[in-house]
Amino acid sequence: MNYLAVDVGGTSTRAAVVAADGNCLGYGTAGSGNPTSFDTITAVTAIVAATRTALAAAASTPADITSGVVGIAGAGGATGPRLHRELISAGLPEPLTMEPDLLVAYHSGSLAPDGYVLVAGTGAAAVRIRDHQIEATADGLGWLLGDAGSGFWIGHRAVSAAAATLDGRGQPTALVDLVLSQLGIATTGPVNDGGRPNALQQLVHVVYGLRPVELARLAPLVFEAAEGNDEVAGRIVARAGDALATTLGAVVDPRLVGPLVLGGSILAHQPSVARQAIVALPRGTAAPSVVTVADGVAGAIVLALRHGDKVVDESVFARIHTSLATLR
Amino acid sequence: MNYLAVDVGGTSTRAAVVAADGNCLGYGTAGSGNPTSFDTITAVTAIVAATRTALAAAASTPADITSGVVGIAGAGGATGPRLHRELISAGLPEPLTMEPDLLVAYHSGSLAPDGYVLVAGTGAAAVRIRDHQIEATADGLGWLLGDAGSGFWIGHRAVSAAAATLDGRGQPTALVDLVLSQLGIATTGPVNDGGRPNALQQLVHVVYGLRPVELARLAPLVFEAAEGNDEVAGRIVARAGDALATTLGAVVDPRLVGPLVLGGSILAHQPSVARQAIVALPRGTAAPSVVTVADGVAGAIVLALRHGDKVVDESVFARIHTSLATLR
Repeated sequence: MNYLAVDVGGTSTRAAVVAADGNCLGYGTAGSGNPTSFDTITAVTAIVAATRTALAAAASTPADITSGVVGIAGAGGATGPRLHRELISAGLPEPLTMEPDLLVAYHSGSLAPDGYVLVAGTGAAAVRIRDHQIEATADGLGWLLGDAGSGFWIGHRAVSAAAATLDGRGQPTALVDLVLSQLGIATTGPVNDGGRPNALQQLVHVVYGLRPVELARLAPLVFEAAEGNDEVAGRIVARAGDALATTLGAVVDPRLVGPLVLGGSILAHQPSVARQAIVALPRGTAAPSVVTVADGVAGAIVLALRHGDKVVDESVFARIHTSLATLR
Repeated sequence: MNYLAVDVGGTSTRAAVVAADGNCLGYGTAGSGNPTSFDTITAVTAIVAATRTALAAAASTPADITSGVVGIAGAGGATGPRLHRELISAGLPEPLTMEPDLLVAYHSGSLAPDGYVLVAGTGAAAVRIRDHQIEATADGLGWLLGDAGSGFWIGHRAVSAAAATLDGRGQPTALVDLVLSQLGIATTGPVNDGGRPNALQQLVHVVYGLRPVELARLAPLVFEAAEGNDEVAGRIVARAGDALATTLGAVVDPRLVGPLVLGGSILAHQPSVARQAIVALPRGTAAPSVVTVADGVAGAIVLALRHGDKVVDESVFARIHTSLATLR
C-alpha cells in the first residue's frame, strides 16, 4: 500500500506517491493552487492534476493509497473542511488530511518535534512548532494585509518605485528600465496630454490588468538591481530582510530552541535576505540547524506516513529526500 | 439656454444646471462614478443619475442645454472618448466635453490662468496648470501603484498596522480597537488552531471581501487616533503629509507662481496634513492664495460656460459659488 503527499503553493503544486519505507514511486506537478476565502476551484483543479500525474508515474491508483496529506495555506481555517469535501468528491482517496502549508514545509526540513519555519515566496509567514504542531503564527496575512518581505511585497515596491521615478516623485533607479522591459513596455515615447510620460500611462494599464499577486514575478528584478548597487533596490531588499526578521521574531520563544527551516523562493535564492532574516533566532540555535527547503512535498510525505502509523526516522527521512530528488 | 456641469468623484458624483450668467438652477448627486480602464458602467450610471436630478430640479431638459462638461479622472486617456460615446448614447446633451477631474477642481478655486492643484481624497494627485491647461501631473496612479498620502493609502496603513499588532509584529496602537469596531469585528475571542487570534482571522476575512479602495473609509480613524497621541497613527499621518508634499513638489516649477487649490476630503478636513503638504510651494506663493475647495462642480460650471463662449469673470465666479451654496 502507498501514500499520497501533495504540497500546494502560490506558484506551483506538487504531488508524490510513496511506499511505506519512504521510497518515492511517482511525482507530478501542476499550476498555482492557492485557495482564497471565496474560491476553491483553482486549488481543487491543481491538486487533482498533480495527483493524477504522480499516480500515473507510480503506476498506482487511488485504491492503492492508505492515507494522504495535502499541505495548503488556510488548512486550519474555514477553507480546509470545504476543500476536503470537494477533493473527496473529485476522487482523491480517503483518509485525506489537510495540513497547514507551513507545517509541511517544516517537516521537509526537520524531524525535530520543536522548531521554527520562516517562508518567503509569493507570500511570507513564520510559525513556531511545538511537539510537531503549530503553536504560533505570524503574518501570512496575504498581499493586502501583510506578507511583509514576500515576493509580492518586493515586486509591488519595485513597480511603485518605477512609477514614482517616471512621475518625477522618486530618485532615478535601474528598476524603471527593468520593470518596463519585463512588462513589455517601450521605455521611450512622448509625454501625453495630461503631462504624464507615455511609458507611465502604459505601466498603469498593464499593472491594473494583473492580479496583484502576479507582481511577485517582478521581485527578481529588485535583487538584480541591488547587486548592481542600485540605491532604491538596495533599500527594498534591506527592508524585506528587516520585515522577515520581525515576522520570525514574533514567533520566537526564547525557551524553545530548535531548528529553523527556511522555505520559499526568496529565502532559497537570496542568501543575504536569509542572513538578515534570521537575526531574530534565539541564542542556542546555531547556524548548522538552519535548513533551507525547496518546498513542502517531503514534509507532506513525512506526515502522510505518520498518519498511516509508520515510523519516520532519519533513515526513512533520507530515503524520502534521495528518492524524491531522482524523480524531479 | 442653460449649461450642464458634472463632477465625478470616488465617493460621489455631482451635477449642476446653470444659466448663462452663472446662476445655478438645479443640483443633483449620485454615488461613486470613478471609471476604471476596464469598466465605464459605474461612471455612466452615476453621471446619468446626477444629471437627471439636476435637470428635474432646474425644470430643464437635455434640449435646453447649450454645452456640458464632465470632470472625471482619466478623461485625458483612452477612457475619455469611450465614456463620451456611452454618455451621448445614454441621452446626455451635446456638445459634451470630458475634462480631467483635477482641471475642474482647479477651476472651482481660481480663475487665474496659472497655478497648482493638490487633491487627496480616496486617491491623491497634483497638477501644474499653465494657461488653464494641465502642463504636468504627479501621482494619481491609483491604489496599487501610487495615490501616496490618499485616503486609501492611510486606511490601508491603518488596517495593516492593526493586523501587525494583533499578530505580535507591531507595537500596541489604538488603531486595533478602532479598526475592528468600524468593521464590526468582536475584539475578544480565543486564539485558534493556527496560533492566530480569532479577531485577526475575522479581519482577514472581512478585508479580502472589500474592494481595496473601500479601505479609504478607515482613514478618519487614523486622524482620530493621532489626535489622541497614538504613536503608530501619528507616524501614518506624518508620512501622508510628506508623501503629499513630494507629489506637489514634483509639479512645482519655481518660475510658475500662482494659487494653490487644495481638494479632497483629507485636505479639506485635516489642516495639519494640508500645512505639511504645502511646504513644497514655490516662494512668492503666499498663504492667502491657498484655496480649499469642496469638489469640482463649480469648476465644471466655469469650463462649461467658457466652452459656450461665455466670459467668466470674478462676478460670475462669485454668483456660481453663492447660488450653488443655496442648492446644496
